[in-house]
Amino acid sequence: MLYLVGLGLADEKDITVKGLEIVKKAERVYLEAYTAILLVDKDALEAFYGRPIIVADREMVESSSDDILKDADKVDVAFLVVGDPFSATTHTDLVLRARELSIPTRSIPNASILTSIGTTGLQLYNFGQTVSMVFFLDNWKPASFYDRIKENVSIGLHTLVLLDIKVKEQSLENMARGRKVYEPSRFLTVAQCAQQMLEIEEEVKKEGVYRRDSLAVGVARVGAEDQKIVAGTLGQLCDADLGRPLHSLVLLGRRTHDLEREFLEGFAIDKEGFNAVWKKDYEGRG
Amino acid sequence: MLYLVGLGLADEKDITVKGLEIVKKAERVYLEAYTAILLVDKDALEAFYGRPIIVADREMVESSSDDILKDADKVDVAFLVVGDPFSATTHTDLVLRARELSIPTRSIPNASILTSIGTTGLQLYNFGQTVSMVFFLDNWKPASFYDRIKENVSIGLHTLVLLDIKVKEQSLENMARGRKVYEPSRFLTVAQCAQQMLEIEEEVKKEGVYRRDSLAVGVARVGAEDQKIVAGTLGQLCDADLGRPLHSLVLLGRRTHDLEREFLEGFAIDKEGFNAVWKKDYEGRG
Repeated sequence: MLYLVGLGLADEKDITVKGLEIVKKAERVYLEAYTAILLVDKDALEAFYGRPIIVADREMVESSSDDILKDADKVDVAFLVVGDPFSATTHTDLVLRARELSIPTRSIPNASILTSIGTTGLQLYNFGQTVSMVFFLDNWKPASFYDRIKENVSIGLHTLVLLDIKVKEQSLENMARGRKVYEPSRFLTVAQCAQQMLEIEEEVKKEGVYRRDSLAVGVARVGAEDQKIVAGTLGQLCDADLGRPLHSLVLLGRRTHDLEREFLEGFAIDKEGFNAVWKKDYEGRG
Repeated sequence: MLYLVGLGLADEKDITVKGLEIVKKAERVYLEAYTAILLVDKDALEAFYGRPIIVADREMVESSSDDILKDADKVDVAFLVVGDPFSATTHTDLVLRARELSIPTRSIPNASILTSIGTTGLQLYNFGQTVSMVFFLDNWKPASFYDRIKENVSIGLHTLVLLDIKVKEQSLENMARGRKVYEPSRFLTVAQCAQQMLEIEEEVKKEGVYRRDSLAVGVARVGAEDQKIVAGTLGQLCDADLGRPLHSLVLLGRRTHDLEREFLEGFAIDKEGFNAVWKKDYEGRG
């Protein structure tokens, strides 16, 4: 059996009891470590699970999936995924490959940022499609997120923006020379995301989908003890420091509930300013 | 401290290790048991957690929240919620009340149907807002879900439809007479949901937002060993029997990926028919 086991968001104790039982009895344990990360490293997981873990990078999952699936028709293989197992499409591929090989699969769900974002007080019913924000380069500033936000905004919905992570990436030079040397990990911050969003709006698209004084919420380390939530305008979030990764951002839609305001004002950078913008641009506009 | 602990979806072992530690040391343990249910009963939870559990019905949470919060500034209180703690707004209320009383709160995330629906192979990025479907009565057929589905459909997105549950409800007569007698629990099925959706489309709204041959996916008991997934047209789902609760339904949007088709065809009631409709109405239409 191939088990896809969700690990949740923060640390080694966010695995479910059911997931832990599977990890303890599996023949081999893989950890998918490139679409998301926990806030603890592999050693902490190995110590807690009492099992050695094979880190599966993008290359292994995409080109050597048959190694991962080897003998999984006879023995149990656990493939650990940060968050919920099906939040990224890579794992859909792995399950399809298992199906071709007649290997049974089972997934063990867990928390994902897509729902844990509810910890901000924003109601999950009011979210539209989720978008991703990558690190901009001087000559590469993909703006497809903008059109999706525009669709959400047009029907008044919030947008969760997931932020890029760069783990085990090679520089172009090292890649060209075939050197397996990797760059230090990097994680997009709430401040960088807000800056990039405004750059696309103000310098490229100019369609008024959002503005410097649109309301947004930045979150960091959801589910961890030092979880942090900050609410303010996009302009304010450009200067917000939420500390270590992972970060995410929510752009508010105008279809809101007063409970959301009441909950969020506790996280506002400037409570009075927050409520003033809310009253002017959001309240009763849904 | 007030802990809101997510229980996940299926049984007593879907709690996280962190959540279980909190339950074991909390002074009082409440179980919210009216917006969702696990597939096991309270006794199974008490036996596994080794703790007595106080079932909190809607009345208790909404009118006696101060009893739940009693002394929570000095002792730990665990409030257990099926799924993720913030998937329903009721719990936002409880946290706001705790905040007023200067009681610190912490939430322990867990799996929710909102992301575990990814087990169908449908990509979470392609979902719009989530809607709810209630049990229709002869003279009460609320159709607000239809306009939200219309918004999702207009931008090509999938819609997750959450299905009504009736737990510990009184008949009007018993309520009027103040008799604390409760009706048997009832759970809306995928078939009933598909029928009600078509009834609203064909007899009330007639706007062509979806049709009898629109594609949809029914799921039951997500995360459990006997999880079931069925893909087909809405017409076919009107006759689908997915067994015991809980059920949910997804109406497909036209913005699709071939990986989604490949994954779903394994669950199709009629594979050839499914692929034919896909090719005609979905493929390349996003």
